[in-house]
Amino acid sequence: MLKHFQVPDDIAVRVDVDKLRYATEQVFMKCGVPESEAKLGADVLIFADESGIDTHGVSNMLRSYVAGYTSDALNATPEIKIIKETPSTATIDGDGGLGLMIAPKAMEIAIAKAKAVGTGVVAVRNSGHLGAAGYHAMMAAENDMIGWCMTAGGKSMVPTFGAEAQLGTNPIAFAAPGNNEPTFMFDAAMTSIAGNKIGLANRMGKGMSPGWVAEDDGTPDMEGGAVADFAANSMRMQLPLGSTRELGSHKGYGLGVMVDILCGQLSFAPGFGTLARTRRAHFVAAYSVDAFGDVDEFKENMDGMLKGLAATKPMPGEERVYYAGLPEHEVRIERRENGVPLHPEVVEWFRDICAEFEITFDLA
Amino acid sequence: MLKHFQVPDDIAVRVDVDKLRYATEQVFMKCGVPESEAKLGADVLIFADESGIDTHGVSNMLRSYVAGYTSDALNATPEIKIIKETPSTATIDGDGGLGLMIAPKAMEIAIAKAKAVGTGVVAVRNSGHLGAAGYHAMMAAENDMIGWCMTAGGKSMVPTFGAEAQLGTNPIAFAAPGNNEPTFMFDAAMTSIAGNKIGLANRMGKGMSPGWVAEDDGTPDMEGGAVADFAANSMRMQLPLGSTRELGSHKGYGLGVMVDILCGQLSFAPGFGTLARTRRAHFVAAYSVDAFGDVDEFKENMDGMLKGLAATKPMPGEERVYYAGLPEHEVRIERRENGVPLHPEVVEWFRDICAEFEITFDLA
Repeated sequence: MLKHFQVPDDIAVRVDVDKLRYATEQVFMKCGVPESEAKLGADVLIFADESGIDTHGVSNMLRSYVAGYTSDALNATPEIKIIKETPSTATIDGDGGLGLMIAPKAMEIAIAKAKAVGTGVVAVRNSGHLGAAGYHAMMAAENDMIGWCMTAGGKSMVPTFGAEAQLGTNPIAFAAPGNNEPTFMFDAAMTSIAGNKIGLANRMGKGMSPGWVAEDDGTPDMEGGAVADFAANSMRMQLPLGSTRELGSHKGYGLGVMVDILCGQLSFAPGFGTLARTRRAHFVAAYSVDAFGDVDEFKENMDGMLKGLAATKPMPGEERVYYAGLPEHEVRIERRENGVPLHPEVVEWFRDICAEFEITFDLA
Repeated sequence: MLKHFQVPDDIAVRVDVDKLRYATEQVFMKCGVPESEAKLGADVLIFADESGIDTHGVSNMLRSYVAGYTSDALNATPEIKIIKETPSTATIDGDGGLGLMIAPKAMEIAIAKAKAVGTGVVAVRNSGHLGAAGYHAMMAAENDMIGWCMTAGGKSMVPTFGAEAQLGTNPIAFAAPGNNEPTFMFDAAMTSIAGNKIGLANRMGKGMSPGWVAEDDGTPDMEGGAVADFAANSMRMQLPLGSTRELGSHKGYGLGVMVDILCGQLSFAPGFGTLARTRRAHFVAAYSVDAFGDVDEFKENMDGMLKGLAATKPMPGEERVYYAGLPEHEVRIERRENGVPLHPEVVEWFRDICAEFEITFDLA
């Protein structure tokens, strides 16, 4: 279910998770990030790598973060400011730091508020890319809470009937804990496909599949083969989840607007009133299960539901039915054992950056 | 955008909104519902009718509610109980009442909590059908809050790769206020199409469109023409939003599970641990904009975003781009002026039920 974009086994270099983590931490620190922050950022990235979310791991993202720090587009030592708060809410300014580290701090605030009054809802502005949103939602689940994380911004999604991109891919992540079953963790862009997957498909020489993008005039490409522009800061013509009006693209589009509102309007981030391409903001929330009822009973019920979903009779040609978070859990077990499969180019990049930054470490 | 299922103009009978409201209130009262509750339930139904959400208005829903009351499946005089609460949360038992009236009361609790501590999050069990979920989300928007409403239950959605239905259509509604622009109101099933639309299509002699349902063995029908079972309590084989794995059906499926968790697991409603067909529960939440920042600034920014979306250049063959809530707003203006177009059969049913209940009133 997750293997569509994995580096092919015959060329992949398996890198030990702990070594990858160490090297990533060192790279962040050489960018001026304090050690505790570097460890946190690496943890978010490695979570993606070990979970099979290759679009959001070190191979796809770390070099853009390094570029951000070295160009001073990212603040390596941000001081998070709470602009406004109530017992259950906070509006936060991330001081231009990387979202990888800002979002967990926002979620810590949400969790503390949820412990105190039942729920915590935090809107975040002035913060960079947050990595795999599922990581931050999972923080709540590990505290016996339901967790949300969303991030909005950019121009990648074409509204239904539209001929120009207006919204970002605007992912929604959501996590809820079971007892013995792997945690339910949903994390998905509200476009039919994640933006980074278009980049990965381009890199692997694959064309666009049907339903992924619109032609230049806005017409959904339902045959496949359209050429997708993935240049930095380009206006990608991605279709909302649902692809066409007939298949429900107005739903993916509407959910995308919802994410813009929760992240950007609620945090009063610049550019959300004008749909500016450069806008970016996040949203995290935690709902304490204990506030609603007995935690053990909840987790037992969750286990029943999750087992029931995984036991769904499969359709012809498929061996199993999954639920969100289950494949990632299984991949984590395998990769912690066997290492993360990286493209040789990525290993090469690590060697180069380690040499440049004078990090004496052999990745693989 | 909303006209797919409107009764054709040449047979539709236009009924004045206030007359339809009065007749609906009277029908509820003859079922034993107290006057204030009857007015509330009618308001929820008429909101759907006047907004063009014909699947959730009087024509499609009222007779099933009457059947519920007369068979004692529905409690006409429920006493809502708060099972557990914290400053920002409540778990509610609806005492077997109709969700039309229970959900607004749950939202009132959520709004009161949001006024006090920033957010209010309420999970509801033991409550019937709640009508158009957007109505309840709009209550928050009218109080300068962001509003959520979800409802879960039944077996209508086939998980990605599955050969049997496991989840309901599990709609998500979300509303957020602008200043002068029509309120953003999203309300959509997490299947590719709302369940009631299948019933309406059946009634109008239309076959299933591509991507709406799965064949009996679970294979997505992407050609169209599959026969959909819409018998009461049947296991409908509806596809999640996204229709196929390639188009992102795992996202619609994952969002559907999320709705099950927020409604059913969080309210500790029976049957959610076993995916029972008879399970049903709701979720409402309100986030006070004032808790995050200046309300006027928020609404101005919202106006800018909404105007920007509606001004999106359209693709060939389309005149305009909408945002969720805009078509409903425009239909409301038209129907308040010209009446709600009802099928003659529905008018006939009203005549019969008014005669049976001794309601002396002429609808049209």
